[in-house]
Amino acid sequence: MAQNYSFQYFTVQFPPENPYVAHVEINRAEKMNAFFEAMWLELRQVFAQLSEDSAVRAIVLSGAGEKAFTTGLDVKAASQGPLVGKADHDPARKAVQLRRHVAEFQDCISAIERCEKPVIVAMHGFSLGLAIDLSTAADIRLCSTDVRFAVKEVDIGLAADIGTLSRLPKVVGNFGWVKEVSLSARIFGAEEALRVGFVNAVYENREALIAAALKLATLIAMKSPVAVQGTKEILNWSRDHSVQDGLRYTGVWNSAALQTSDVSAALLSAMQKRTPTFEKL
Amino acid sequence: MAQNYSFQYFTVQFPPENPYVAHVEINRAEKMNAFFEAMWLELRQVFAQLSEDSAVRAIVLSGAGEKAFTTGLDVKAASQGPLVGKADHDPARKAVQLRRHVAEFQDCISAIERCEKPVIVAMHGFSLGLAIDLSTAADIRLCSTDVRFAVKEVDIGLAADIGTLSRLPKVVGNFGWVKEVSLSARIFGAEEALRVGFVNAVYENREALIAAALKLATLIAMKSPVAVQGTKEILNWSRDHSVQDGLRYTGVWNSAALQTSDVSAALLSAMQKRTPTFEKL
Amino acid sequence: MAQNYSFQYFTVQFPPENPYVAHVEINRAEKMNAFFEAMWLELRQVFAQLSEDSAVRAIVLSGAGEKAFTTGLDVKAASQGPLVGKADHDPARKAVQLRRHVAEFQDCISAIERCEKPVIVAMHGFSLGLAIDLSTAADIRLCSTDVRFAVKEVDIGLAADIGTLSRLPKVVGNFGWVKEVSLSARIFGAEEALRVGFVNAVYENREALIAAALKLATLIAMKSPVAVQGTKEILNWSRDHSVQDGLRYTGVWNSAALQTSDVSAALLSAMQKRTPTFEKL
Amino acid sequence: MAQNYSFQYFTVQFPPENPYVAHVEINRAEKMNAFFEAMWLELRQVFAQLSEDSAVRAIVLSGAGEKAFTTGLDVKAASQGPLVGKADHDPARKAVQLRRHVAEFQDCISAIERCEKPVIVAMHGFSLGLAIDLSTAADIRLCSTDVRFAVKEVDIGLAADIGTLSRLPKVVGNFGWVKEVSLSARIFGAEEALRVGFVNAVYENREALIAAALKLATLIAMKSPVAVQGTKEILNWSRDHSVQDGLRYTGVWNSAALQTSDVSAALLSAMQKRTPTFEKL
Amino acid sequence: MAQNYSFQYFTVQFPPENPYVAHVEINRAEKMNAFFEAMWLELRQVFAQLSEDSAVRAIVLSGAGEKAFTTGLDVKAASQGPLVGKADHDPARKAVQLRRHVAEFQDCISAIERCEKPVIVAMHGFSLGLAIDLSTAADIRLCSTDVRFAVKEVDIGLAADIGTLSRLPKVVGNFGWVKEVSLSARIFGAEEALRVGFVNAVYENREALIAAALKLATLIAMKSPVAVQGTKEILNWSRDHSVQDGLRYTGVWNSAALQTSDVSAALLSAMQKRTPTFEKL
Amino acid sequence: MAQNYSFQYFTVQFPPENPYVAHVEINRAEKMNAFFEAMWLELRQVFAQLSEDSAVRAIVLSGAGEKAFTTGLDVKAASQGPLVGKADHDPARKAVQLRRHVAEFQDCISAIERCEKPVIVAMHGFSLGLAIDLSTAADIRLCSTDVRFAVKEVDIGLAADIGTLSRLPKVVGNFGWVKEVSLSARIFGAEEALRVGFVNAVYENREALIAAALKLATLIAMKSPVAVQGTKEILNWSRDHSVQDGLRYTGVWNSAALQTSDVSAALLSAMQKRTPTFEKL
Repeated sequence: MAQNYSFQYFTVQFPPENPYVAHVEINRAEKMNAFFEAMWLELRQVFAQLSEDSAVRAIVLSGAGEKAFTTGLDVKAASQGPLVGKADHDPARKAVQLRRHVAEFQDCISAIERCEKPVIVAMHGFSLGLAIDLSTAADIRLCSTDVRFAVKEVDIGLAADIGTLSRLPKVVGNFGWVKEVSLSARIFGAEEALRVGFVNAVYENREALIAAALKLATLIAMKSPVAVQGTKEILNWSRDHSVQDGLRYTGVWNSAALQTSDVSAALLSAMQKRTPTFEKL
Repeated sequence: MAQNYSFQYFTVQFPPENPYVAHVEINRAEKMNAFFEAMWLELRQVFAQLSEDSAVRAIVLSGAGEKAFTTGLDVKAASQGPLVGKADHDPARKAVQLRRHVAEFQDCISAIERCEKPVIVAMHGFSLGLAIDLSTAADIRLCSTDVRFAVKEVDIGLAADIGTLSRLPKVVGNFGWVKEVSLSARIFGAEEALRVGFVNAVYENREALIAAALKLATLIAMKSPVAVQGTKEILNWSRDHSVQDGLRYTGVWNSAALQTSDVSAALLSAMQKRTPTFEKL
Repeated sequence: MAQNYSFQYFTVQFPPENPYVAHVEINRAEKMNAFFEAMWLELRQVFAQLSEDSAVRAIVLSGAGEKAFTTGLDVKAASQGPLVGKADHDPARKAVQLRRHVAEFQDCISAIERCEKPVIVAMHGFSLGLAIDLSTAADIRLCSTDVRFAVKEVDIGLAADIGTLSRLPKVVGNFGWVKEVSLSARIFGAEEALRVGFVNAVYENREALIAAALKLATLIAMKSPVAVQGTKEILNWSRDHSVQDGLRYTGVWNSAALQTSDVSAALLSAMQKRTPTFEKL
Repeated sequence: MAQNYSFQYFTVQFPPENPYVAHVEINRAEKMNAFFEAMWLELRQVFAQLSEDSAVRAIVLSGAGEKAFTTGLDVKAASQGPLVGKADHDPARKAVQLRRHVAEFQDCISAIERCEKPVIVAMHGFSLGLAIDLSTAADIRLCSTDVRFAVKEVDIGLAADIGTLSRLPKVVGNFGWVKEVSLSARIFGAEEALRVGFVNAVYENREALIAAALKLATLIAMKSPVAVQGTKEILNWSRDHSVQDGLRYTGVWNSAALQTSDVSAALLSAMQKRTPTFEKL
Repeated sequence: MAQNYSFQYFTVQFPPENPYVAHVEINRAEKMNAFFEAMWLELRQVFAQLSEDSAVRAIVLSGAGEKAFTTGLDVKAASQGPLVGKADHDPARKAVQLRRHVAEFQDCISAIERCEKPVIVAMHGFSLGLAIDLSTAADIRLCSTDVRFAVKEVDIGLAADIGTLSRLPKVVGNFGWVKEVSLSARIFGAEEALRVGFVNAVYENREALIAAALKLATLIAMKSPVAVQGTKEILNWSRDHSVQDGLRYTGVWNSAALQTSDVSAALLSAMQKRTPTFEKL
Repeated sequence: MAQNYSFQYFTVQFPPENPYVAHVEINRAEKMNAFFEAMWLELRQVFAQLSEDSAVRAIVLSGAGEKAFTTGLDVKAASQGPLVGKADHDPARKAVQLRRHVAEFQDCISAIERCEKPVIVAMHGFSLGLAIDLSTAADIRLCSTDVRFAVKEVDIGLAADIGTLSRLPKVVGNFGWVKEVSLSARIFGAEEALRVGFVNAVYENREALIAAALKLATLIAMKSPVAVQGTKEILNWSRDHSVQDGLRYTGVWNSAALQTSDVSAALLSAMQKRTPTFEKL
């Protein structure tokens, strides 16, 4: 499948030294990668396409420019959008408009979670508001030492509604900390993020960060894609279900997945101490 | 709404330097704040009232006296209560009495969780048994270095039934640790509590602890109450539901909440670099 | 109840200095305790029997030999088993065989979770693949400094299906870390396992590890078995249910459990500062 | 336990020929038993008290007067209440007031479901709006031939929010019918109600209806109260949970309930072909 | 919002005598309205557009031609599609293709359920296979006497996977009947469909059927759209959640919806005995 | 796979005119097929074996003798069993014994639900207590005109705990009727059972009943076993999950099942108008 990745607000690259890895970058550095509606609609397209592209087995998401992964919602755009409404309208009808707007926005960000391939987010500089929504929809979070995180939404008068409040408590086991940063909107840095488990590792600067993210993506991309994609799917399912339901779903999933020739290939390669190669998926 | 806060076992104060903050203190220092039935019934009243008092936006709960936040159940009272029963009664009928007793007791403690405003618990000294039930129903836990925690219930022959076993695994992500302290009833201190994420921060003594708790409460109380109360509610809902159900609930919740004038107020204040003020809630 | 514990692949001992404690050991040191089908079928028997043996109140599970707790699936046996199938069969019919196989295997490992008595797993050396499935079905995980953990399954072309993907996210609150080790199959050691909360404590070597595990088991075995077994059950139930459902289940459970004479016995002993003794269960 | 049942809007009687049966009647015939706030607050009290009164084993709820069980919300009262709001207020703050109002109202009606004793609702004449909310919170619904039912809420511009939309689909298995009557607000009669399973039986007039309801209540009241109350509770739990969770809850519930002497009493009476008597509960 | 409804396989009409009602017809009578992929993709578009069209308040879905609502999947198209696969491919990789195919297909049919406006399906003649999937995703099912229903899928070697098996047990409360027709694929007619509650009503022929469907749609379309759309949403949510979760969702939903001016309009019209008019939604 | 079906309390026959159908009969006619412990343990064995026997595609369960399908628990055996306990034992410890007993008993009956092949229960004469538990664990219920059903348990002082209270509300959509028969223990007959949907059909006598059950089983057994067994499994899963979870599970299940050659075989046979034959499963 030959895919065309020409987007307006995102760059998608396939570094030759990282086979099967796609590197997506938010490409609005001049505005610190702040988002407006056209951007999140495009984000959904990017990840929907990567999800079904058999040339891709792992994805890195980062932000262009030195200053920020993203500062979140573009305040200027937001102040003209549906959030700042006209008081004279029927509140129930306005609620319908807002609900549709939020649902669409959520759906765009959830494209990262729905993407069948693992997504590693590499965050540096300002990583505020939507940065947390985005990154909790991904699988693995990495950052550089200069990162400045905040669940910023209460500071603009709203409860974060694009995923943070639903996903952050399932990504970080420390519920008191989740409450504190969500209620206070205070900035937290790399060290704290590592300590509570919000990020997996910290790197000294943006360059090292992205290199490490690509390296980890490459490591994952070398595994059987049947095994990797099944692992992502089953872990996400299990997060939301009882252990019993998790076990049963796993059994049904693997009743097809275990029929792959990748198992023989992997076992054989292991015995012969060589790197296995796997058919596209 | 003018509220009257005259209670027997709890003091409720409104420190003038902490606008919109209520400071609740368990007020039975002479018995190390040990609880008997009248106290938990009153606790429910306290938090039900604070929940709807528009002059309150954040709450701190602490224990009076130097020695203890609370040592838990008053053993003497408990040994005369329904837990220590007469063997000659029909066990099924006795079970009904016990179930009603436990349900009522649980409901009193859950008043802290149901309270629409964030609750910060500040624990010092002995913080045993019911202290854990109480504090896991709150939003944020802080402690001083002298704290001595224990999930004490197995030591008196029972499985903790007022909330600890249901909430502690959702407050601390380390399930093995939860199992260990719940099964062994061993004491653990401030450092361990911080490491596993049971508390958010540790302070050198009771005075510093309460000052810090009030300061954090004040920080939260300065935010939009619409945003803060929505954040508490959605986080608690999300803890108990799938991500998908969390997102949908968030969208419905915010379809009303986003119509608040607080968003405009907050955005405008941010642009003008001044502190916003928000209407009562 | 006099139980007979003569098994082929497991030893079950009752150290006289650890009253009410059973010590189970995987007994295939010459193959680094690698598992084949007869072993997991027997494992289920062992834990079913211990679950109902009133002479047992806590269990330690370890692996014989210096090198490994277990290296997981016996690759040679696996390469002849149902996982490596004949391509010519109807895939839907083969899926049924695989589903039954996986379900049976899962059920054997879940015997550890179903066991009414707390299970402490003590892991040393290689602790790969099935080691993680096994240990996440237990209550408390301990290890020695030489341990080498890995969620190894993606390296043999499959998504871990015997419990790891369903239980690990509920045992360790750091979901990004769970994703990383499950997707990359990389080795991690004792220090990292402690930091993320996969193990409760680390000991300098196998000997110290097992001594500590037995000591912790003994501490738990000295408590009221009614209280201990109720605590295990309610914590596992709560993991998979909302707080509200957890509270209600607890109330129903304790409506019988609170009628135990253990409560009086424990309260009386506490007042008299002596160790209580409890009737068998 | 001697209970005092003197209420303003409800009569509570204990017909001597119906031992252990309480007959509750909505007592505002002059306004066709239409509800305003003080009435539903009192309804909660009535059922909370009956729930714990050991002299009561089954309850009949009917409406006074010839014309109506209840016509639902008192439109005049409602038009002055929180539903008809001032447009100039902050919609998010108004939403908080409305949410509290609805939650309190729902909680009052749910008192019928929470009541530990079975509740049989006997409906005649106009049984509109709140009549459906009320009766779906009960256990068994009976009616007379003159009944006129309607899920009336869409006709006053709102989605029924006091329980009908959550409970009616679980009371009647015909989801298309539930949708139709809820979306169209059309009147339906006794015959249709019987056919779709909304009511258990139809009687020729109000007198016959109430006699039949009391007779059924008496039949139930003659059974073991341990068995009857357990049956109500487990059926309601099972409605909201999977079969697996239902079975487990049942086992835990019955681990206390089966210890009742009622089982021996019932078995013995059956052998001796006489009516058993059971201890109070 | 001016909508353009020019589709290839569906006609969308707005009968002038049925204000606010859209009539959608499957328009492939020459092939008995059998579906192939382009058709279900278009179906999703149709209902997505109607969902947000404020000129639409209720929808009727029927099939063109005298012979069939739809005979289901176009067998010829299906025999060339992904269901009939090449045996030589890796079964795990083929499973991924099939899963994506099924998920996309399901999502298209679920567009009827997601549609914010009530959907009434009017079925005549052959209504096989996909007809059941389609109609259970709708709100109300009507049919004519000549209808021939069947859950046909087992007859072509597969378990129905586009919704029937998930939705039919929630639409019809008779689980034994659902099992029988799904396992046997036998034909059933209008009378049986009415008796078990699969359809709400039966009409003598196609013409009468469609007239009745439009009439019911018109009745619903005359109500407050805020009330009607809230009712559909809350009923669907409640079907999948506990009563407690249903009540809470309802309260949150209505905290915005109750602020509508439709309540006053409806109450006022009721007092004045005239038909209310409602603002667009 | 050659299976041996020699059991003590059950006969298992394979009528030659009903290919792939197993006919199981409860074989204790002299005691009206009343159950004691050895019988339900054997029942589990019977259905576990049938579940994996590829010569079996559908099962009929009936009771030997003219008088009864089963009168339920053998009262004499029960009066000596764990239900009728000694009052002097610790109630908490006795609760553990009872819980284990109930769980084992439930598990035996659930073997009918776990059985991968559809089970049709044919009931005649007395069908009391356990008859309801048994039959609700099956897929389809049929009866003869002489049947006498009752949820008998409250009459012996207990809430039905082997499945009826968890499954009956999911088998019959009329919750009020379920409540009534469970709370009153009253007898109901064939006509009522048919009307509420507890049975699918009624036959004039035992002979006609069994003939009809075998005929229906044969019809099902002629279909693709991949399709039939998938249909049973997905319907049972969907009963306990949301529509969304049902759809996803279906997609995963069918990703393997759709790869069967049965689809081509069925499509081809349909075109050629001949009966397809399917490989064993």
